[in-house]
Amino acid sequence: MFFASDNWAGAHPAIAESLVKEASGYASAYGTSDLDRRVEAHFNQIFEREVAVFFVGTGTAANSLALASVARAGGVTFCHFDAHVNADEGGAPEYLSHASRLYPIEGRDGKMSPSALHTAVSRFDTPSVHQGRPMAVTITQATETGTIYTLDEIDAISAIARSKGLPLHMDGARFANALVALDVTPAEMTWKRGVDILSFGATKNGCWCVEAIVFFNPDMAEEMPYIRKRSAQLFSKTRFVSAQLEAYFEGDLWLDLARHANAMSDRLRAGLRASNKARLAWETESNEVFAVISKEASRQAQEKGAKFYEWLVPRDEPDLVGPDDTLIRLVTSFATTPEDVDRFLDVL
Amino acid sequence: MFFASDNWAGAHPAIAESLVKEASGYASAYGTSDLDRRVEAHFNQIFEREVAVFFVGTGTAANSLALASVARAGGVTFCHFDAHVNADEGGAPEYLSHASRLYPIEGRDGKMSPSALHTAVSRFDTPSVHQGRPMAVTITQATETGTIYTLDEIDAISAIARSKGLPLHMDGARFANALVALDVTPAEMTWKRGVDILSFGATKNGCWCVEAIVFFNPDMAEEMPYIRKRSAQLFSKTRFVSAQLEAYFEGDLWLDLARHANAMSDRLRAGLRASNKARLAWETESNEVFAVISKEASRQAQEKGAKFYEWLVPRDEPDLVGPDDTLIRLVTSFATTPEDVDRFLDVL
Amino acid sequence: MFFASDNWAGAHPAIAESLVKEASGYASAYGTSDLDRRVEAHFNQIFEREVAVFFVGTGTAANSLALASVARAGGVTFCHFDAHVNADEGGAPEYLSHASRLYPIEGRDGKMSPSALHTAVSRFDTPSVHQGRPMAVTITQATETGTIYTLDEIDAISAIARSKGLPLHMDGARFANALVALDVTPAEMTWKRGVDILSFGATKNGCWCVEAIVFFNPDMAEEMPYIRKRSAQLFSKTRFVSAQLEAYFEGDLWLDLARHANAMSDRLRAGLRASNKARLAWETESNEVFAVISKEASRQAQEKGAKFYEWLVPRDEPDLVGPDDTLIRLVTSFATTPEDVDRFLDVL
Amino acid sequence: MFFASDNWAGAHPAIAESLVKEASGYASAYGTSDLDRRVEAHFNQIFEREVAVFFVGTGTAANSLALASVARAGGVTFCHFDAHVNADEGGAPEYLSHASRLYPIEGRDGKMSPSALHTAVSRFDTPSVHQGRPMAVTITQATETGTIYTLDEIDAISAIARSKGLPLHMDGARFANALVALDVTPAEMTWKRGVDILSFGATKNGCWCVEAIVFFNPDMAEEMPYIRKRSAQLFSKTRFVSAQLEAYFEGDLWLDLARHANAMSDRLRAGLRASNKARLAWETESNEVFAVISKEASRQAQEKGAKFYEWLVPRDEPDLVGPDDTLIRLVTSFATTPEDVDRFLDVL
Repeated sequence: MFFASDNWAGAHPAIAESLVKEASGYASAYGTSDLDRRVEAHFNQIFEREVAVFFVGTGTAANSLALASVARAGGVTFCHFDAHVNADEGGAPEYLSHASRLYPIEGRDGKMSPSALHTAVSRFDTPSVHQGRPMAVTITQATETGTIYTLDEIDAISAIARSKGLPLHMDGARFANALVALDVTPAEMTWKRGVDILSFGATKNGCWCVEAIVFFNPDMAEEMPYIRKRSAQLFSKTRFVSAQLEAYFEGDLWLDLARHANAMSDRLRAGLRASNKARLAWETESNEVFAVISKEASRQAQEKGAKFYEWLVPRDEPDLVGPDDTLIRLVTSFATTPEDVDRFLDVL
Repeated sequence: MFFASDNWAGAHPAIAESLVKEASGYASAYGTSDLDRRVEAHFNQIFEREVAVFFVGTGTAANSLALASVARAGGVTFCHFDAHVNADEGGAPEYLSHASRLYPIEGRDGKMSPSALHTAVSRFDTPSVHQGRPMAVTITQATETGTIYTLDEIDAISAIARSKGLPLHMDGARFANALVALDVTPAEMTWKRGVDILSFGATKNGCWCVEAIVFFNPDMAEEMPYIRKRSAQLFSKTRFVSAQLEAYFEGDLWLDLARHANAMSDRLRAGLRASNKARLAWETESNEVFAVISKEASRQAQEKGAKFYEWLVPRDEPDLVGPDDTLIRLVTSFATTPEDVDRFLDVL
Repeated sequence: MFFASDNWAGAHPAIAESLVKEASGYASAYGTSDLDRRVEAHFNQIFEREVAVFFVGTGTAANSLALASVARAGGVTFCHFDAHVNADEGGAPEYLSHASRLYPIEGRDGKMSPSALHTAVSRFDTPSVHQGRPMAVTITQATETGTIYTLDEIDAISAIARSKGLPLHMDGARFANALVALDVTPAEMTWKRGVDILSFGATKNGCWCVEAIVFFNPDMAEEMPYIRKRSAQLFSKTRFVSAQLEAYFEGDLWLDLARHANAMSDRLRAGLRASNKARLAWETESNEVFAVISKEASRQAQEKGAKFYEWLVPRDEPDLVGPDDTLIRLVTSFATTPEDVDRFLDVL
Repeated sequence: MFFASDNWAGAHPAIAESLVKEASGYASAYGTSDLDRRVEAHFNQIFEREVAVFFVGTGTAANSLALASVARAGGVTFCHFDAHVNADEGGAPEYLSHASRLYPIEGRDGKMSPSALHTAVSRFDTPSVHQGRPMAVTITQATETGTIYTLDEIDAISAIARSKGLPLHMDGARFANALVALDVTPAEMTWKRGVDILSFGATKNGCWCVEAIVFFNPDMAEEMPYIRKRSAQLFSKTRFVSAQLEAYFEGDLWLDLARHANAMSDRLRAGLRASNKARLAWETESNEVFAVISKEASRQAQEKGAKFYEWLVPRDEPDLVGPDDTLIRLVTSFATTPEDVDRFLDVL
């Protein structure tokens, strides 16, 4: 009954085995090995165009260095208030991008409201060194609250970014979960929508430690080798990342893992909807589920071994949770079993 | 014939297998799992005292965040001119420590000269906001040029640091190689000599990706959790680091691997000394060998499959290498075989 | 008819003359001259306690270095959304404080709402490296929207800051204007209310270039000399700042100048209230007035030589201004004359 | 007998008077007033081409933001070891340029040795993210040790910078002193030699507080408005800088002041050469004189009211000063009188 986070699962056996397979022999370091090249080429295939790919150590690093690559003096990046970059990365996005700033935008369901974005960006229409200047827009797909931007919604945000000359970044910590939920191709969910830079996360979907920054226009990545090194994110034995990714992509394992995680959340949602002990706090579509239960039920479930986090009530819905209740977050992963889900529903 | 770097080797089989073993099941993230705790405790045992340990992604990160932990406005860290922090980390040590500065010190054999250090630090004896103020001393053990500080030499530097109230950091990217070469205990080579913070490197000695910052006085590490997160160096599935370290420490595997790498360098040095096609550029004691060979010999060896780097001639010995010759660096690792060495000597 | 900003006025004659008087002769540099010491001592007298004072070049510098003095990894400062630090300083507060972050708080009339502040700070009650940690609260007195915190209102914010262990900073770019409007002493408006650090602005009130950071507990200023130098804010001929301040404080000139500026705004407000061509956008109490007039009237007034800025409509009152109207800001200063005001009202 | 520094003098009367003259009336802020424009145009005339000029508060700021304008990830700036940026600015050049690094170069007489520069820059010829990459060369004119680069010497350094594609910056804290000593035009000493960016210092030559960054190719200054604001160096009442500069340039006052300061140093040097109580430590050509005297003589001179600093012995000449002697620095300024000089020589 481990629903605390998708990063509590370890690595998929195929990924761990790939590390054994690639452990012997020699390979040139710092991203120059044959295996590195092969995996990079695979990214071109997955995204149906030539991309520039940079492996880094954490999702925080992927987001932060993506912003660093477009940073400029006085720069302001627009994000949802609850975006991971704004809420959960300890200031790394600012620290690693020369103190560029984040401008939090409101929006229901964890999604940036296009009209709020338009209003906010337009406040900078008159150039002013005092105000600073827009430098990027970033969205998270799937969002931190378990929802997913539709292609049309991405288009709406992208159109604003384009009209203001701003690059669009997508934080894809749960990229695969969104992809299979929407049932679209990676290209359709990214550059065909106007996304310029993607944080491609694989750690939460069955890898040990794989995050990549993908530039859909390789020219935009010119400074990245130096930016990455300066931020201490250039691994020497990059093959250990590539080896994971080779297994991850093999036979579309990554999509299968995401489908499984999503299906487990579907099962969980269905169970919670049917329960009289809990209610869904809001509808989600990926591998995250948010539910309101009584504090007593939460305590008892934890005593019986269920692992999950009680969550902060959203700023814009202070009345979502009554005084005797609590909001909990449940995350499923590639490793979650139907039995886990059912046992948790039973315990509840 | 792979002598380019110890990071061209993959991972030791026992370490790769440990990742398979630990891949299944759940564990809490961000350094809080039982395995993490167990491995942390092992560090206490190895160093014979209670230490604070922080895993990070790269050696560059370990050094940079060690300096960040003691950074203050106007701060200056004293290092050897050829120290990795000064020469090979793309500015990360400065970038990740609020632009603290490095003050390069000369010294033969890649080792900081105590008298040069004393002279340099003493230039700051009169407090001055213009000059800035000393904040740390850092040495590399084994050094970047393959030599090793004796315990007495560390004592000499440590005494200066103490007398000026400065913390002493040791970059231990090749910590194990130095340790077994000196045949001393980890405690004897570090805190018993006055070292306050250690970058404990395991990647070059048979791990995939393991670097740790060790504080011998845990009180000095109070800010580190926030510093590490802000620098995007907090892994989620830290278990993947711990799993490597568990195998690394098991039965003193780490010391065996380092002994092997050093022995392969001994063999290489002996062969080069006996050769009339090469000469040792200087004496080394760890798993790095520097030799002068003719450019033609270098070309031919590479054509026959030998992998190594031609190296920059040291600034203070511009006449070391004649016009038809070249300086090469040869690095051995846990994976180097006697046959590799002998074949290389033959090829030469 | 110059109402664009209080920084469009030059310097008061007494202040300019003081610079002539002090121009001859020698004085030690970098804040160590007799005059510097004398003026610093005057600050003690004004604030009725021993304070530490640091001159810097701009109000942006004063605010930024005040925050830098309390910065720590993962640090978050709470400010009003419209606070100058958040809205008008080009990212300097973040840049000069190691990328510490600002957390914008809502509140009517340009004042931070204590309950919104309490809610926001409390979101950090559970320590988390992901979220970061509170490091300061900052308020602007008088506010950017021309209002003034009452002593009780400062107390309410201060109480929250205290309860969370956070230092309270006051941006006093228009400190004197607030002081005379409230008719209280400098001590009563600052440390007696729990303010720890003050940006003491004099430039907008008749000086050429005088901003000072005042620490009410000198121990908190220990790092400031190095912080200031590192941020390139240590003037060599500091006497030019002190000379201005000597004249500024002489015979309470500074309070007279502020009273005059406020009186001119009173006159302006009275005139606008009586006008049928304009309405006050909201009530103000200092030397700033915000009015809604027709776009046509704005155009005509500017053609006739009136200088003022059209202003961004507050985010939380998008309907304040109709489609044919515009919001304008009018600022009076020590140099504004009653005739200026009357002529402007006439023109309107 | 004030020879401690040229920043111990106040402001020239004409400059102080100009501040009185310009104090009344209104002018638009932040560098947009008519006076600002007029003075900017004067720079074009002085340098015989269209330049971009940015006023900042301190010489440290001028140098730091000049470097910030060409900063890039992994960037390294080459400077003389004793350059102000490296030795006396408390880390500001690094701090304000995203932690770009300084690479100290040796060279006699405080001047960078072209061959040492060439050797150092060439170490970066093979692109490497580990090493970082050259971003600028900076020289100080006049140097910190009182010497002056000849036009040929600037050409030699400039040629290396050009050949490596690097911008050349000149720290002109004592620009006027060098100019009149060489008896050349501002154009001849800067862009005609290949200088791209100049820190134009006027504070040490009779202004209160005037430093400007001059870009000889205005296109290079595109980011500067945002860089300056972000570094808290944008004054509001910029007219106070322009007013000083208007008087400074009027009738070539600035050149007269520098000629006077230099002449006073000539007189001092002549007197010291003739003295049997002192010897010149090395030959200087600007308004700085370095002498070796006995510690006893230094003590006595100070007791009799002479103001000067005992100076650190240069690193490369540790035997310059015997055990009973001390090195002193004597600086003359626009305010130094022949009587001051003679009295000092007498006292000695």
